[in-house]
Amino acid sequence: MTLALIPAPTIAAFNPPRRILMGPGPSDVYPTVLAAQSKPTVGHLDPLFVGMMDELKQLLQYAFQTRNEMTLAISAPGSAGMEACFVNLVEPGEKVIVCRNGVFGERMRQNVERCGGIAVTVDHSWGEPVDPAKVEDALKQHPDARFLAFVHAETSTGALSDAKALCALARQYDCLSIVDAVTSLGGVELRVDDWGIDAIYSGSQKCLSCVPGLSPVSFSPAAVAKIKARKTPVQSWFLDQSLVMSYWSGGAKRAYHHTAPVNTLYALHESLRLLAEEGLPQAWARHQAMHQQLKQGLHQLGIDFVVAEPYRLPQLNAIYIPAGVDDAAVRSRLLNDYNLEIGAGLGDLAGKAWRIGLMGFGARRENVALCLQALGEVLR
Amino acid sequence: MTLALIPAPTIAAFNPPRRILMGPGPSDVYPTVLAAQSKPTVGHLDPLFVGMMDELKQLLQYAFQTRNEMTLAISAPGSAGMEACFVNLVEPGEKVIVCRNGVFGERMRQNVERCGGIAVTVDHSWGEPVDPAKVEDALKQHPDARFLAFVHAETSTGALSDAKALCALARQYDCLSIVDAVTSLGGVELRVDDWGIDAIYSGSQKCLSCVPGLSPVSFSPAAVAKIKARKTPVQSWFLDQSLVMSYWSGGAKRAYHHTAPVNTLYALHESLRLLAEEGLPQAWARHQAMHQQLKQGLHQLGIDFVVAEPYRLPQLNAIYIPAGVDDAAVRSRLLNDYNLEIGAGLGDLAGKAWRIGLMGFGARRENVALCLQALGEVLR
Repeated sequence: MTLALIPAPTIAAFNPPRRILMGPGPSDVYPTVLAAQSKPTVGHLDPLFVGMMDELKQLLQYAFQTRNEMTLAISAPGSAGMEACFVNLVEPGEKVIVCRNGVFGERMRQNVERCGGIAVTVDHSWGEPVDPAKVEDALKQHPDARFLAFVHAETSTGALSDAKALCALARQYDCLSIVDAVTSLGGVELRVDDWGIDAIYSGSQKCLSCVPGLSPVSFSPAAVAKIKARKTPVQSWFLDQSLVMSYWSGGAKRAYHHTAPVNTLYALHESLRLLAEEGLPQAWARHQAMHQQLKQGLHQLGIDFVVAEPYRLPQLNAIYIPAGVDDAAVRSRLLNDYNLEIGAGLGDLAGKAWRIGLMGFGARRENVALCLQALGEVLR
Repeated sequence: MTLALIPAPTIAAFNPPRRILMGPGPSDVYPTVLAAQSKPTVGHLDPLFVGMMDELKQLLQYAFQTRNEMTLAISAPGSAGMEACFVNLVEPGEKVIVCRNGVFGERMRQNVERCGGIAVTVDHSWGEPVDPAKVEDALKQHPDARFLAFVHAETSTGALSDAKALCALARQYDCLSIVDAVTSLGGVELRVDDWGIDAIYSGSQKCLSCVPGLSPVSFSPAAVAKIKARKTPVQSWFLDQSLVMSYWSGGAKRAYHHTAPVNTLYALHESLRLLAEEGLPQAWARHQAMHQQLKQGLHQLGIDFVVAEPYRLPQLNAIYIPAGVDDAAVRSRLLNDYNLEIGAGLGDLAGKAWRIGLMGFGARRENVALCLQALGEVLR
């Protein structure tokens, strides 16, 4: 006797509308990136695909401004890139100075503890950049610290920290630096080699304007040496970079680790190619110029920024919700009437702030104009 | 003084050819799945996207034949799905009976040990299915075992194990069952609820004929109770299902955990929709019918199967490389002259076997015909 099956649901094809994405990510995706993703799938060990992966590595090295050999994309979102950095580098009992000035610094702390490390937090108010003086105090108080971890561009608050100064401190106090560049890569100046960053992770869906799902990472020679000197195995098999690198660095000898997300890697290749074509300085300047335009318009609407001017991220504008305004109702009207998505506040800023992203392909005149006009109409 | 930048590489757009994918995965992707993936990206908290996610859960429940509430897709490939099952369920010091009859059983063992569990292996020759009698012996010898883990369809050898019998044994000896269904889901009979499977993971890029990058998983109420009763936190933040579920089960209240891979989820929605339209029994029968056709043709070419007939997977045909034939040269000629990819042997079968996949959209007459004709021409 054959048991009956649970019946099949009847479900129509999903046809999303064209939204204008001006939240904290995913950002507006370049049309040719969407098109690249739907090109025919090839095998992940196909010589043509392997060639594309070699190009992808060069493009990632350009975006990060690094010659690090261990530069690749983790086959999962930015949170997995964060975890990859911590689980590969931090061994049980090792101390990590973790700077917290928003949601993602706190997530770093949780990662440290889940891999058996000891997290020492250096806390700041939300909206403030990381203070190098406070960090130096912590480094002095904890001479046994092995790592300094901080967020370059805090997506939850829109604050930019001085990665160059912080990495110099890390080096001075014999720590390796671990940097969250999820929202900074491609949007503001970032120089992995010049600044001496040891481990860095980003996301595909912010200023690269690729689809979400991949996390570019890079490890310095010092970080690689630390990984190779581990006394304990990396707790994650999927994120173990010593295994992953046998696929990414093998050239023709690439060994199977896991099935690469082929089509999403096509998309990342195309988005990084567009960034290389535009040029990093041009992309950084464009984000800044669009931010200035948005700032002027918001000023006319009487709206204030959460972050003080010198530390504001051009690509992530956290602004206070005007008094008496219904947060959710405004965002719903923007979405339903204008197909415009802006971001809600996160963590301490939930219900108090909105986050307007000007990221990658989203950082353009028509987006700024639409956002200002729509916000003006809805708040009227 | 501004430091010079590392110059941008000049790289052309990548234009992959249309390969016919008959290896162990990725499999041929349905054209409408590729098209779905390039639909406009929307926000991962957009109400329209949330609605699609609710449909996706229903479709996953159908494919797995389960009513498990905790049914979702991990935002990463099948290896991460495997890791998600082990790190959420197994606590340090807990014993897991792991059946090894190929590459993926061994990977399970490594996962158990990396999360602090004690793996007891039950070993089989490559190409054999898991033997329930051997498993029962191990369960008797280890009354303190908490889990039984095995691979339903071994992708490295093409052997199908009796998941129903093995899960009944697990239950009889008070173990939870953890099942690898990466290659079985959609290709052969699989009934999560009827067979009493407690934790199961699969991949998007095998018999679902979706692009690679996602791992469908499902946890029974008993598995969820085990997760909720944990004394230690899950070592992975990214894969911690108690956090992930606040996004997948929240309906309108979905909470942010990580940015969902929006476009790849469109693709999975479409591929599961096509499976539901065809119907599971019809899909299982089609895989079997195509396998029979391939088998007849291979017999005429004098080629033998690695796995004995009763345990052969229709969707993954491991065959011995004829004596005197150059493994790599044949696969290169098939790829370069016919755009046809078949798989190399893996692990113990490297250099000894080829693996011909008939998975999902790949399991159709024209693929079987091409493969037989091309193989005949190249081996002549």
